[in-house]
Amino acid sequence: MARVAMRKGRLEAFSDGVLAIIITIMVLEMKVPHADTIQSLQPLIPVFISYVLSFVYIGIYWNNHHHMMHAAQHVNGAVLWANSLLLFWLSLVPFVTAWMGENHFSTWPVILYGIILLMAAISYTILAHNLTLLHGKNSMFSRSLGSDKKGKISMLIYLTGICLSFIHPLVGFGLYVVVAIIWFRPDTRFEKAGEIIDDNDGETPLETDSHKKSLPLM
Amino acid sequence: MARVAMRKGRLEAFSDGVLAIIITIMVLEMKVPHADTIQSLQPLIPVFISYVLSFVYIGIYWNNHHHMMHAAQHVNGAVLWANSLLLFWLSLVPFVTAWMGENHFSTWPVILYGIILLMAAISYTILAHNLTLLHGKNSMFSRSLGSDKKGKISMLIYLTGICLSFIHPLVGFGLYVVVAIIWFRPDTRFEKAGEIIDDNDGETPLETDSHKKSLPLM
Amino acid sequence: MARVAMRKGRLEAFSDGVLAIIITIMVLEMKVPHADTIQSLQPLIPVFISYVLSFVYIGIYWNNHHHMMHAAQHVNGAVLWANSLLLFWLSLVPFVTAWMGENHFSTWPVILYGIILLMAAISYTILAHNLTLLHGKNSMFSRSLGSDKKGKISMLIYLTGICLSFIHPLVGFGLYVVVAIIWFRPDTRFEKAGEIIDDNDGETPLETDSHKKSLPLM
Amino acid sequence: MARVAMRKGRLEAFSDGVLAIIITIMVLEMKVPHADTIQSLQPLIPVFISYVLSFVYIGIYWNNHHHMMHAAQHVNGAVLWANSLLLFWLSLVPFVTAWMGENHFSTWPVILYGIILLMAAISYTILAHNLTLLHGKNSMFSRSLGSDKKGKISMLIYLTGICLSFIHPLVGFGLYVVVAIIWFRPDTRFEKAGEIIDDNDGETPLETDSHKKSLPLM
Repeated sequence: MARVAMRKGRLEAFSDGVLAIIITIMVLEMKVPHADTIQSLQPLIPVFISYVLSFVYIGIYWNNHHHMMHAAQHVNGAVLWANSLLLFWLSLVPFVTAWMGENHFSTWPVILYGIILLMAAISYTILAHNLTLLHGKNSMFSRSLGSDKKGKISMLIYLTGICLSFIHPLVGFGLYVVVAIIWFRPDTRFEKAGEIIDDNDGETPLETDSHKKSLPLM
Repeated sequence: MARVAMRKGRLEAFSDGVLAIIITIMVLEMKVPHADTIQSLQPLIPVFISYVLSFVYIGIYWNNHHHMMHAAQHVNGAVLWANSLLLFWLSLVPFVTAWMGENHFSTWPVILYGIILLMAAISYTILAHNLTLLHGKNSMFSRSLGSDKKGKISMLIYLTGICLSFIHPLVGFGLYVVVAIIWFRPDTRFEKAGEIIDDNDGETPLETDSHKKSLPLM
Repeated sequence: MARVAMRKGRLEAFSDGVLAIIITIMVLEMKVPHADTIQSLQPLIPVFISYVLSFVYIGIYWNNHHHMMHAAQHVNGAVLWANSLLLFWLSLVPFVTAWMGENHFSTWPVILYGIILLMAAISYTILAHNLTLLHGKNSMFSRSLGSDKKGKISMLIYLTGICLSFIHPLVGFGLYVVVAIIWFRPDTRFEKAGEIIDDNDGETPLETDSHKKSLPLM
Repeated sequence: MARVAMRKGRLEAFSDGVLAIIITIMVLEMKVPHADTIQSLQPLIPVFISYVLSFVYIGIYWNNHHHMMHAAQHVNGAVLWANSLLLFWLSLVPFVTAWMGENHFSTWPVILYGIILLMAAISYTILAHNLTLLHGKNSMFSRSLGSDKKGKISMLIYLTGICLSFIHPLVGFGLYVVVAIIWFRPDTRFEKAGEIIDDNDGETPLETDSHKKSLPLM
């Protein structure tokens, strides 16, 4: 059991490391302007907005990954590789963030940004699916994961956003913001159950219930 | 309890990772000069000074974050998000450090540097506030946090520094240095109580008392 | 015993950190195009393919390192230095990845890429050898490590790839992909034994057996 | 006691993180050549040599820091700040490594490289001194630290190297290599005592003795 915990711990540590680096190196794409006027920052505004959205997304992924791995009891090879797949797509976020920001949210960059988000969401679903297979359908893990309505809706919105970007990219960008808000907004059921649940994951029926939303497949 | 510790541990690990990356990538903004003369380093002096100040600030934040999370018993969703907000503002430090250094402490860069510091300080206050709410007003955590005089003074000095930078940016910069010195200087009460306190956080009344200043809201 | 675990833990943590940074900074070599057209991404395709291969390789190394260190009971100075040697060669992967990608898999970059992979594989063998010496030939660690047929074949393929690159670099590149597939493909014996083995490393004869392939010397 | 361990653990984790990032981002200073010929790598040879030396130095520091913190029982504010000072000087290593490499080991870059190494060595001495003060002169920690002959000789060689660089920089560079070899070379007493000592730090008189050299003040 201690050995299992260690293996899980190392997966968490590696993922945390990669996510911490992704979230931090993105800022390197915000090139420091040569002039020192307030106007010289103006061209950076879209880059900054793009950075904020990606920061929120990586933050949400870290938060959800944290919750899901916390609930997990075991990991196996399939979980390790699904996790690597997720990290792969997230590692491309700094690239598409910079491309989208520098091109002021024009069509192709917004589409590619959406595709990367969609790929990350699919990978997250695969990761959750592999964890469910490993723990069994009737395990505490699987029950707390729930039916993942939120995750399915997110993928649908990403897809819609990608398609509508061909008409106007800001519609696509707007829809990506909507998904971020859906995940960012505290869950009301989760709020009602309060801190007690938060400190006793998976030990009371009440908490299991409230956690249905706290282990989302984004 | 073990589960709670793990969750807190992962928050600490993620924050440590981000802070470690921020403190290290800042040096990448010090562009290596092409010439090999001692004179070629001269234009880097303001960039270096700017780097030193930011290194000290990130170091102080790491130190304070370390102390505060050490005293904390639980974390919840609100704490996670307040922590992310803090990391967001600190992630912008490399950008403003480079901008300020490359422009030799001229008006707008110094103002923006101050705004980022102020935002980080406000986020830290929110984080401490959320931790206090979670632990309760009468908890060991809240009592050791104290009234946070130092934190309130810091924010006032930042604000003054931002305003006075319009008259002369070096006044603003000087005030940011003052705040760093305030936090850097070892606390006299803390010194008196000595190492014993440092190794037994929150277990004796003496230690609680001396810790009032060691859990600051910068 | 707890002390030993800590030392091993810190070696793992440091290695995870370095591997996490390597895997993430590679993406910085994919320079964001200035144009916003889909065509502007075309020159990045070889860079992207190069990135994918390196991502998979670093992922495989992390996975294998994770398994091998998990099975290890002790570390000593020789292990620490062999580990540093491995990290040294892997730290050069972002450089050769970018060089190979930007030059569309031309002769010398492909050769150098192969040399770096070969050096990393040799270092990994030295690391495994040092761990075997430390644990003893008849230890659980050494038995689960096995004869390392896969590792020896990999080194042979690298060498062949380096030589054949003088005739045509894509042959070399193709062989590096073959090695990645060899390692990436789940081991059949490992699969048969299933998840149970994966959670009880080194405790049952069955599991030890199935692990012969899961502790590879790449 | 558990609390102390945690605090020490977080100091170690933060230091590991910073050292892992330093050792990895240095490679970013090796700019990928545009041509794909073997000749195009030639100008990178001094940069590569410079990188190798710095990699070895950071590796030595990580190794020594690892051993010293392993032996330490407590940390306090003074230790935290001495540790930050050490990390500060080491964070400048990528900068001086690149400057020295790009200028083919000419006078000023070699001098500055030596100054940074000297400063790091002094900071390490301060860190060890603060740990000794905290643990007491007669503690296991202080006795295993010993008189630190190796550390004092290193600082003398750095100083000599800096001075002699004014005559010819390669003399200075050669002396820095000498210090790296002094630390890199396995200690004979340490070797004789073997693995047993390495796994039971500070528990037998034999081991304490052999450790006199394994807790060096570089």
